[in-house]
Amino acid sequence: MTMNQQILLDNRPAGEATAANFKLVQTPIAELQEGQVLVRHHFLSLDPYMRGRMNESKSYADPQPLGEVMIGGTVGEVLESRHPKFKAGDAVVGMGGWQTHSVVDANVFGALRKVDTTHVPLSHYLGAVGMPGVTAWYGLVKIINPKAGETVTVSAASGAVGSAYGALAKARGCRVVGIAGGKDKCDYVVNELGFDACIDYKAGPGAVRAGLKEHCPKGVDIYFDNVGGEILDDVLARINRKARIIICGAISQYNNTTPVQGPKNYLSLLVNRARMEGMVVFDYAQRYPQAVAELSAYLKEGRMHSREDVVQGLEQFPAALLKLFNGENFGKLVLEVAKG
Amino acid sequence: MTMNQQILLDNRPAGEATAANFKLVQTPIAELQEGQVLVRHHFLSLDPYMRGRMNESKSYADPQPLGEVMIGGTVGEVLESRHPKFKAGDAVVGMGGWQTHSVVDANVFGALRKVDTTHVPLSHYLGAVGMPGVTAWYGLVKIINPKAGETVTVSAASGAVGSAYGALAKARGCRVVGIAGGKDKCDYVVNELGFDACIDYKAGPGAVRAGLKEHCPKGVDIYFDNVGGEILDDVLARINRKARIIICGAISQYNNTTPVQGPKNYLSLLVNRARMEGMVVFDYAQRYPQAVAELSAYLKEGRMHSREDVVQGLEQFPAALLKLFNGENFGKLVLEVAKG
Repeated sequence: MTMNQQILLDNRPAGEATAANFKLVQTPIAELQEGQVLVRHHFLSLDPYMRGRMNESKSYADPQPLGEVMIGGTVGEVLESRHPKFKAGDAVVGMGGWQTHSVVDANVFGALRKVDTTHVPLSHYLGAVGMPGVTAWYGLVKIINPKAGETVTVSAASGAVGSAYGALAKARGCRVVGIAGGKDKCDYVVNELGFDACIDYKAGPGAVRAGLKEHCPKGVDIYFDNVGGEILDDVLARINRKARIIICGAISQYNNTTPVQGPKNYLSLLVNRARMEGMVVFDYAQRYPQAVAELSAYLKEGRMHSREDVVQGLEQFPAALLKLFNGENFGKLVLEVAKG
Repeated sequence: MTMNQQILLDNRPAGEATAANFKLVQTPIAELQEGQVLVRHHFLSLDPYMRGRMNESKSYADPQPLGEVMIGGTVGEVLESRHPKFKAGDAVVGMGGWQTHSVVDANVFGALRKVDTTHVPLSHYLGAVGMPGVTAWYGLVKIINPKAGETVTVSAASGAVGSAYGALAKARGCRVVGIAGGKDKCDYVVNELGFDACIDYKAGPGAVRAGLKEHCPKGVDIYFDNVGGEILDDVLARINRKARIIICGAISQYNNTTPVQGPKNYLSLLVNRARMEGMVVFDYAQRYPQAVAELSAYLKEGRMHSREDVVQGLEQFPAALLKLFNGENFGKLVLEVAKG
């Protein structure tokens, strides 16, 4: 009998999440009921939103319950199906959670989706053509709708969301300036991703401010914020009249034990008649096909690149998650739990 | 010869503005040139934005130059005119500044506007049907466009902008909850202005949070912020999905010598897919007639009230301005410098 290896949230973190917050268990896989599909996961996704779910307080979704399998995006293959739309061998994406297998009720809308791996590797459905890519697509195409010639800045630029955001903005004729941590990432953002420039926020005090001045000589029209903290303040200080800021995340603040650092330059919104708006990609599940179509075309045409940081083995999940918050991952962070 | 009494900005304040930042001078009034109009001011307006202008740094407008007459809205009567559209005795509104008289080039668009004082007292053109009223009108009608049944909160509710905002929102079928300092102001906001409720932010720690919970049982859909600081954070903690916040001002922060207090609950924008947007009324001069028409109709019909806090004498200007920042004014603060 195949055993399912699962990672449960055992207790809630105070500050930084650690391996001690989780428990690895082995559970027998029950026999399938009518309508169910058994999926063997190949890759699990590691995403910043997971940290928020570990807290007790309700955010845009309910907290992750204690003693249950941690939530998370997954890609894999169907091992066994009692649903007419799926058969063994199908490549599928879903929210299978932190475990090696999942039993999915395929009648639930959106619970399991077949994907085409002819041109796009399976793991990319967790990144460039998955939730992060769609986040970027919605946050640029639907909420901002930029004009050619506008200056777009994006933080966490070498990550899955940032990479896609930049590619989508370049395709629309914008000047795109990334912000990332370290020379390697910045070189990658400019040389591989094709951004116009990238600012290394780790280059020393004042580096972001100076970089924005240098690389956004006409000011900032659009900012897609994944990080919060000082970088958000530095961008606020450089925005143009009628600028639009999307608040997609604030990874610098998620492990805080002290209160969140509010943007002390928020009155720049007033001075510049500018707007700051929050978005949550999970609202737009019905838009996925449209977004994925554009993003996978870019991948095929080489207009977008998706770097992955692959960690091996389910037992590495908690440690790998920490890499996200330390900025140690370089590209979309995924955990490989089975070979295809 | 009539002498013009003028208040000049003599030096820039560090923190709180004081009388020592200004200088009172007497200047002869020069003979009118073609196209010019001499206005005798009856009332000068005292408004929060003035504090920002006293700083060296550029905000949404250039700083007030040192050694020149302080900027400010004025209403008065024409004493003498060399412009065909104005004649002695006309009631006029303009940006005459902190002085007893002004010589205005009436060919400049918007520099001087004749007003009808049949039903609306002259001083109200500095408040309910002036810049503050138009601020409220634009910030509700044009930017927000609320739906009946939505919950609207507004800070500095007993002031000129807040009073008008509430009246406009009530007229559109919203639930309107004010925030003001002290029992007298709150009683006035509910009993005279007709708001559904008013929260006294001076009632003790946690008063705003508790008041919002009590008076906005369905959460906050719209917030018009004039104050910033803790109150903005308290409202952010209570906003609904797709809430809209207008940043009109931040009077709690204008006299700061420390950095502005950023809204530490700004991630509530993300969680609630909400928006925070800045506005500057000076952008909308061409909308004044439409706004003033609605506002003056409300005044006539008794659907809106405009309380004034009248201080006598030009020499009181600096001291009166401080009342604004201490929240000591009760209603629209104006300085009477001549009787009609």
